[in-house]
Amino acid sequence: MNRYSKQTRLLVAIDCIIFGFDGNEMKILLVQRGMVPEKGKWSLMGGFVQPDESLEEAAARTLNELTGLGNVYMEQLHTFGMPERDPIERTVSVTYFALLDLAKYKVQLSSEFQAEWFPLKKFPRLIFDHSEMVQAARDRLKYKASLHPILFELLPEKFTIPQLQSLFEDVYQASFDKRNFNRKIISTGLLIKQSEKDRINSRKGAFFFKLDKKTYRENFHSILRMIPNPNDSI
Amino acid sequence: MNRYSKQTRLLVAIDCIIFGFDGNEMKILLVQRGMVPEKGKWSLMGGFVQPDESLEEAAARTLNELTGLGNVYMEQLHTFGMPERDPIERTVSVTYFALLDLAKYKVQLSSEFQAEWFPLKKFPRLIFDHSEMVQAARDRLKYKASLHPILFELLPEKFTIPQLQSLFEDVYQASFDKRNFNRKIISTGLLIKQSEKDRINSRKGAFFFKLDKKTYRENFHSILRMIPNPNDSI
Repeated sequence: MNRYSKQTRLLVAIDCIIFGFDGNEMKILLVQRGMVPEKGKWSLMGGFVQPDESLEEAAARTLNELTGLGNVYMEQLHTFGMPERDPIERTVSVTYFALLDLAKYKVQLSSEFQAEWFPLKKFPRLIFDHSEMVQAARDRLKYKASLHPILFELLPEKFTIPQLQSLFEDVYQASFDKRNFNRKIISTGLLIKQSEKDRINSRKGAFFFKLDKKTYRENFHSILRMIPNPNDSI
Repeated sequence: MNRYSKQTRLLVAIDCIIFGFDGNEMKILLVQRGMVPEKGKWSLMGGFVQPDESLEEAAARTLNELTGLGNVYMEQLHTFGMPERDPIERTVSVTYFALLDLAKYKVQLSSEFQAEWFPLKKFPRLIFDHSEMVQAARDRLKYKASLHPILFELLPEKFTIPQLQSLFEDVYQASFDKRNFNRKIISTGLLIKQSEKDRINSRKGAFFFKLDKKTYRENFHSILRMIPNPNDSI
């Protein structure tokens, strides 16, 4: 008999927050929950951790079972453990999140799954504390984006400034003045103007730009001046 | 009968990583473990989550029971869940960390507890995966320090550049050339030189500086140029 045997064991679940950028807006992947309580309601992709799998393995398996997606690199986010968060039984949930380039992943979502992409600007009400999980993932994304080139990794090789502005606005949950955004992003010296214009999304057309990757890697801090102070959301 | 009832419940623990800065070096708080396995070995402050408490409450209670420290703001770090991490029984551990100004907290550590501060440069071998937890906390600290004024919050109102260099070296696990560090930190424009010198730690003496808090808040990015690229450690 040791101190372990007197303890209460708890259900441990994982929930996955999957964001995607489709070139124009940020999206979130949701599923219709397949079990009671709240059956049929929209939810993050979640499931229980099995006795012999690590948390990462549980996250990968759950995402695959519910959406068909495989080989998605997910990062652990935060563990939610309020005693009443699941009305059936206390469940501690470890969350994982990923940010996908939808151009690469869209094909894998088959109709046999009840999963669907929604705009991050407007998605259905979620069960339990799942909205709080989504907000935590948005906050982490803002934070990471201020130190990593992740936002640029989502853009196609050639992109327009309106496209970049839309991505920044979705990530920072802010709206930027068009002329100011234009001026500031040009002044970072990180973009290389192309001679071609995108004429699909506006009649006047918008020049394409490429990221100067070398300069970006050496001087990624200059992008910080573009964004709201990340301290505000932590 | 629902899908919940078929699941395996797991032990859920919390472990606390407490760093402190005493004006000269970074320290870590450890306890001698009071139960088998590994009884008597050095360990982080840990315990099991009880049925009715949140994870934050479990962390605060555990820290208080093992060290006497109260009112410590701890931040959730990462959840460790490898099936074999605890040899007695699978235990998922949610870690919390804090960075204390030791000048404020030292008094509370009474001798009735088996807790002790060790230099972060050299501390005893820890049980289980606790060294990995400490490394995760160090990485988070580096990351946060690049976006937040937390390092300056640890320094006394007046500090010397050697003191600041020692703090940076402990946090970034790097050693900086003294003259370069001096030049770079002065060039940030964030420090205000005082007329007094600290003559305790060297015969020649080192001028005291104060942080220009207003400039720091407006221009905290300039400190980024001082530090190794945080991408490297993520």
